[in-house]
Amino acid sequence: MADFAARRTHGTDAGNKFARASYIGGFVGTSNVGAGARYGIPIIGTMAHSFITSFDSELAAFRAYADAFPDSTTLLVDTYDTVEGIEAAIVVAHELESRGSRLVGIRLDSGDMDSLSRIVRHMLDAASLGYVQIVASGGMDEFSIEALVKRGAPIGAYGVGTLAGVSADAPWSDTAYKQVTYDGRPVAKFSPGKATYPGPKQVWRCFDEGDGRVAHDHLTSADADSPEPNATTLLHEVMCDGEVIGDLPSLDQVRNRARLELGRLPESVQGLAGPTSLQVRVSGELGDLARQD
Amino acid sequence: MADFAARRTHGTDAGNKFARASYIGGFVGTSNVGAGARYGIPIIGTMAHSFITSFDSELAAFRAYADAFPDSTTLLVDTYDTVEGIEAAIVVAHELESRGSRLVGIRLDSGDMDSLSRIVRHMLDAASLGYVQIVASGGMDEFSIEALVKRGAPIGAYGVGTLAGVSADAPWSDTAYKQVTYDGRPVAKFSPGKATYPGPKQVWRCFDEGDGRVAHDHLTSADADSPEPNATTLLHEVMCDGEVIGDLPSLDQVRNRARLELGRLPESVQGLAGPTSLQVRVSGELGDLARQD
Repeated sequence: MADFAARRTHGTDAGNKFARASYIGGFVGTSNVGAGARYGIPIIGTMAHSFITSFDSELAAFRAYADAFPDSTTLLVDTYDTVEGIEAAIVVAHELESRGSRLVGIRLDSGDMDSLSRIVRHMLDAASLGYVQIVASGGMDEFSIEALVKRGAPIGAYGVGTLAGVSADAPWSDTAYKQVTYDGRPVAKFSPGKATYPGPKQVWRCFDEGDGRVAHDHLTSADADSPEPNATTLLHEVMCDGEVIGDLPSLDQVRNRARLELGRLPESVQGLAGPTSLQVRVSGELGDLARQD
Repeated sequence: MADFAARRTHGTDAGNKFARASYIGGFVGTSNVGAGARYGIPIIGTMAHSFITSFDSELAAFRAYADAFPDSTTLLVDTYDTVEGIEAAIVVAHELESRGSRLVGIRLDSGDMDSLSRIVRHMLDAASLGYVQIVASGGMDEFSIEALVKRGAPIGAYGVGTLAGVSADAPWSDTAYKQVTYDGRPVAKFSPGKATYPGPKQVWRCFDEGDGRVAHDHLTSADADSPEPNATTLLHEVMCDGEVIGDLPSLDQVRNRARLELGRLPESVQGLAGPTSLQVRVSGELGDLARQD
């Protein structure tokens, strides 16, 4: 998957942050050239429909793009008639071959992706272009991608934009900054339904001894001992007196850690359909404070 | 209404743009100090719960704020117990009076706003503080505000955040850049369901001769004559050869124009519940092109 969201994110800041976050989360790159340059994320080339309509013919547009980027061309084939677009792309793919290059992909941006991708795959294979991959984009989300994967659609890559970049199913993060300590004194807010646990906390990650996966997290006060054997702390000091402590990890280190930690979560919390939440236990002394409310 | 959205918008760019857009749309100001300074939007002061919890008592927090901003203090009363918070605010309001200042408002951020606002109003009036207004915030949207207004809740101002700044009911704008002309030649995209009218356009706003309100808009090619008597054009050239033409209006000019133009729309398109869309007529030559698809 690659980030195609910048067109629809809420402004430039959100577009850049989504490029970075989606790369950390496992995307292979971004079409946001600015974010790619800024964060060191691989830039996934694509072309707009307007690029194609600015030429007298689709074939002329494909040729111009392939001339400019002979080794990283993915051709968008649905501007006029998709099958004619595929035929023009095959012409350009063979022209690239004659010059020692290879067409990277064909991009579908509308229509029935399952049937279209099979048609494209058939036409490409019949033209001895088995190495050209099919890229799908246009209103994709995790559910439509899962459905295409399950049906075996021959799609090699997905461009994901709007539905990830603005996240319509979760348009905001319902979190807020809550003060829990001030000048060494624990503090809290007690309004109905919004009560907080006072004082600084630690979150302990506890593992299943059998499969080594995460079993649950355990919330304690910051100075409490480990509540269970083999628990590891999730919170570490990263700033002190306004200064960052130690070296920050690189973006790829962050991405690798995200992959590692996601892989250690139980299967039940990783499903797209009806995932469970990871259990969080609250230690006795915090629970007592909560019940006072 | 005032913009309280920056905490939840998708990054800083969206927060600043929402402050500007909501001010144009009729909000009276923003709690986003940066956007206020940048665009010249009135800054609406408020305090966080964390400001209050950082003091030993709510009363001490209120006094400290009122000392710092004697003429622009709105006190947030729901951090611990709302009625006790109102009582503390009344103490501070009288202390301000003794120094020749006036408390601006009391802010409610949780609970049943209708009943709480009546309690606050009663307590304020009983303390001869009829001039202190009540501000409501916390999960507000156009529907909850309309309901409170209809029920006559004595609320003078609303702080609107998350539900306007991320707009969960319309998390993205389903518009896209479409090329319609290139090098003097009209162009279009023909993919199923995504066909566009080629060539540059003009939009004519047509008015009802009776009440003077907008009757409908009329879409023509850019070089067409006025399709109806008394129609005015909505599209004007603002850039040429990469340069802005003429002077840009000030933010307050934009805001006043927005108010004027909104007031000229038919009542039927302005309702919160089931508004109709303004009719857009498509001129014959564009319609003919559409039917060719």
